[in-house]
Parts: sequence; structure tokens; C-alpha cells
Amino acid sequence: MKKKLIFVCNDDGVDARGLEALTEMVRPYGDVFVIAPETGQSGMSHSISLLKPLRVKKVKSENGLTILAVPGTPVDCVKLGLNQLLPRKPDIMVSGINHGSNSAISVIYSGTMGAAIESSLYGIPSIGFSLLDHSRNADFSLTVKYSKKIFEKVLENGLPEHVSLNVNFPVVDEKDFRGIKICKQTKGVWKEEFEKRKDPYGGDYYWLTGSFDNQEKNNTDSDEFALMNNYASIVPVRADLTDYNSIESLKKLF
Amino acid sequence: MKKKLIFVCNDDGVDARGLEALTEMVRPYGDVFVIAPETGQSGMSHSISLLKPLRVKKVKSENGLTILAVPGTPVDCVKLGLNQLLPRKPDIMVSGINHGSNSAISVIYSGTMGAAIESSLYGIPSIGFSLLDHSRNADFSLTVKYSKKIFEKVLENGLPEHVSLNVNFPVVDEKDFRGIKICKQTKGVWKEEFEKRKDPYGGDYYWLTGSFDNQEKNNTDSDEFALMNNYASIVPVRADLTDYNSIESLKKLF
Repeated sequence: MKKKLIFVCNDDGVDARGLEALTEMVRPYGDVFVIAPETGQSGMSHSISLLKPLRVKKVKSENGLTILAVPGTPVDCVKLGLNQLLPRKPDIMVSGINHGSNSAISVIYSGTMGAAIESSLYGIPSIGFSLLDHSRNADFSLTVKYSKKIFEKVLENGLPEHVSLNVNFPVVDEKDFRGIKICKQTKGVWKEEFEKRKDPYGGDYYWLTGSFDNQEKNNTDSDEFALMNNYASIVPVRADLTDYNSIESLKKLF
Repeated sequence: MKKKLIFVCNDDGVDARGLEALTEMVRPYGDVFVIAPETGQSGMSHSISLLKPLRVKKVKSENGLTILAVPGTPVDCVKLGLNQLLPRKPDIMVSGINHGSNSAISVIYSGTMGAAIESSLYGIPSIGFSLLDHSRNADFSLTVKYSKKIFEKVLENGLPEHVSLNVNFPVVDEKDFRGIKICKQTKGVWKEEFEKRKDPYGGDYYWLTGSFDNQEKNNTDSDEFALMNNYASIVPVRADLTDYNSIESLKKLF
């Protein structure tokens, strides 16, 4: 049997501990090819580098593990990997483990999920993993233990076409962890999003910040509800943004 | 009656001719507030600036028209506008006119649509307009003439919650233009995406390029089909990425 090829990416950059944890997690399953941004790319969403050329740096190449760094976005890494750098089409793609949440509307700002969505377009079962802890030294042990189960299921069963998984883990002791839950993306937006400051010369500048305004707090099917109740959430994510529900009403309007 | 407040953004930057055309188009309808990136942000998708503070430059302020420039992404412009800079919640938001297509899967890479989707999250009827011509001196006259009709309908009727419109115009003589069509996002991906080159010192680098592989060429409901047949396409776009179709099968799997 041919060895599986596992493609790993992230948005926190090639040095992130979450990437290291994910790489170690998948190594027993086949040959691992990591292509990650050279520097942190949080909040880069699905962006691509149109105006600058990309160079690739080899970080590591040993038995069954190759690590490359690209001075671009997570989606650049996926496109370069699938079009140029990978020896063949990978059997599965994993992104993360992100340092911080990508639940609810954060999925659309997320570079981790940008990479997973991009990979899903090419018919590759793709999963983004995140832990709700921004710190560099976050403890990924529980996340890895249960992510492994999710990874194995997807490796065995695949995923629907052009659908990827957005997986988020709560910060919780294992004794309080309640398992994995299939969810929908929670409805809501960020609010009070900027802090206005003055520089030493009197000029104004703004820092992006704010808090999430959950518009369906009691929806037990939502990812936020799952995470607040010590479940890991899995939201199936599609790359087709069409709102089919409004097609008929718009046809009447135009 | 209070005057309407119209919020304008784009991704080609504050100097783009498409922005100028769109601004002129909407001026007769109310007070116009333009907040646009200082420089071109094509392909920036839904990205946000997490690690750098934003400063705002006043470009113009005259009767009924304010133009501000932000050294950030299109979504930064929308967030800053809605949270800090606009005098009140706008009645409608328009993005573009983009120099180049945002049809099919391009919607997920598009900064123009990133801005419109972001704005739709705040309950504002939002429309992204694009013309399938990348050139700086593209002729926007037909696009403006028919975009005006779309703008008027949305100003009068609003849009479903958290749904924005992705509007694309073909490059075509008016005599051959066949009107406006409500569509779905065409299924497909980009292929042969990189050109590999050598720098003067022998190092390899890659330029992002490629062509769109339409995976449903004969689907008359798709935006690509409409555009190829000289229609303008309107795809309703939603910010909820959940693939509801796969929830039940995933629940069985996990």
C-alpha cells in the first residue's frame, strides 16, 4: 500500500507551537509535508499575494517529514503546495493548530480556515484545528488527543466535495471535557471594535480590538454554545457562498 | 425626510477610477462617505490588520461628500467606518467598482466582496460591483447605467439579513447587453497557478497566475454562464459558511 501523504499548513507561521503539535500528531499516519507562512498571518483570511513573487525556504527535510516556509499567506502556501511543491496530491490536509478561536464569524477572518477551505476546493479532505488559547505556550495535549480521532475518521471516510471542517477546542481540564459536537456557525458580529489612541505627536491612530456579540446565545446547535459547555465544536464549512434561500425573492425583485 | 447616508468602499484603492465612477453614481441619492484603502488591496479577501494600528487620512470633504483613506484592508475600512468614522449607521453600502471579475470562486479572494460581506454583517444592505476589465482606464459607463438600477432597488427594498450581492458586468457593447440575471456561484477552481522563474542570481521564485477551470460550463444558473452570454450576474452571498447539508451525515460519523 502506498504511504499516505499528509499536507500541513497554518496561519501562525512555521515556528508556531501549534504547528509543531499538529505535525507530530499526524506523523504516524504517513509522509508529512508542511508548507507554512514564514511569519504570523493571523486574520489573513483567504487572501493571496498577487503583487509579489514567492520564494520557498527549506526548513527541514528528514525521513518522512519535509518543512518549507513561504513568505506569503496561508492560501499562498496551499496553492504553491498543490500546484508546485507537493510530490503528489495529498490524501488529507490539516491546518493549525491555531493559537486562538476560529469559531462563529471568526471563520471568515481566519487564515487557518482560509487554508483549509482552499485545499477543499481541490477535492482534498481538509480540516482546520483551533484551540481557544492565544498564548504561545498553550497546552495542546487535550486538543491533540481528540483531534487525532477526528483526523482518523476523515482520513478513513473523506468529506463531502468542497466541504472542510472548522474544529475548535475549549480550554478545559480533561475531566470536564464533554466530547465532540457537530454544530452550525453561531450568528453574531464583533462590536466596539477599535481603541482610539494618540501618538506622542498628537496624531490619532486606531487599534483593532472588540468583543463578539453572540446573536443566538441559546442556540444549542451553535459552535459558541458547544464551546461554552466544554465541547469541541465541528462546523462543516463550504466554499460556495451563494445564499440559495434568497434566489427566488431576488428573481422577483429584478 | 433625513437624507440617506451612503457608504462607499473598494479594494483597488482610493485613487481607482472604478471608485470614482461608483461615487459619482450614488451622489444624487444622499450624503456619500467614502472610506477606501490607501493602496491597492486586490486579493485581500476578508483579511484584517491585527498587528498594526491604523491612521486615517482625509482626502476630500465637500458638500455631501467625504473621502477618507486608510492604510489597511477593505474590511479594515468597513470596520473603522461602521465603528468610528461614519456619522451614523449608513442606509446602504456599495463596494467597487472593481477593476476585474469577482465571479465564481473569485468571490472568496476578493477584497471588494470582503468589504460588502463585512458590511452585511452589521445589517446594512451591501453590494459589491465588478467589471470584467482589469485595465485602469476601463469604460464603466454601461456598468454604471445598470448598477444604478440595482442600487435603487436595494435602497428601496433592502436585502435579507446578512446577505450581500456580488454583481459582475461583462465587457460588451450596450446593443449586445442582455440585462441582469440572478445566479449561483459557479463551481470551479483556478489551475496551473504558478509561473516558476529564476532571479539573476539563480534563485527560484513563483508568480501567482493561472486560469479558471469551470466545473459546470453548461449550468445556465451559474454566474459564469450569464457573463459569457452578455448578462450582468447577481449572486446573493451569505456570511454563514455552514454547510447545513452535511450536518446530519457528520453527526452519524462522529
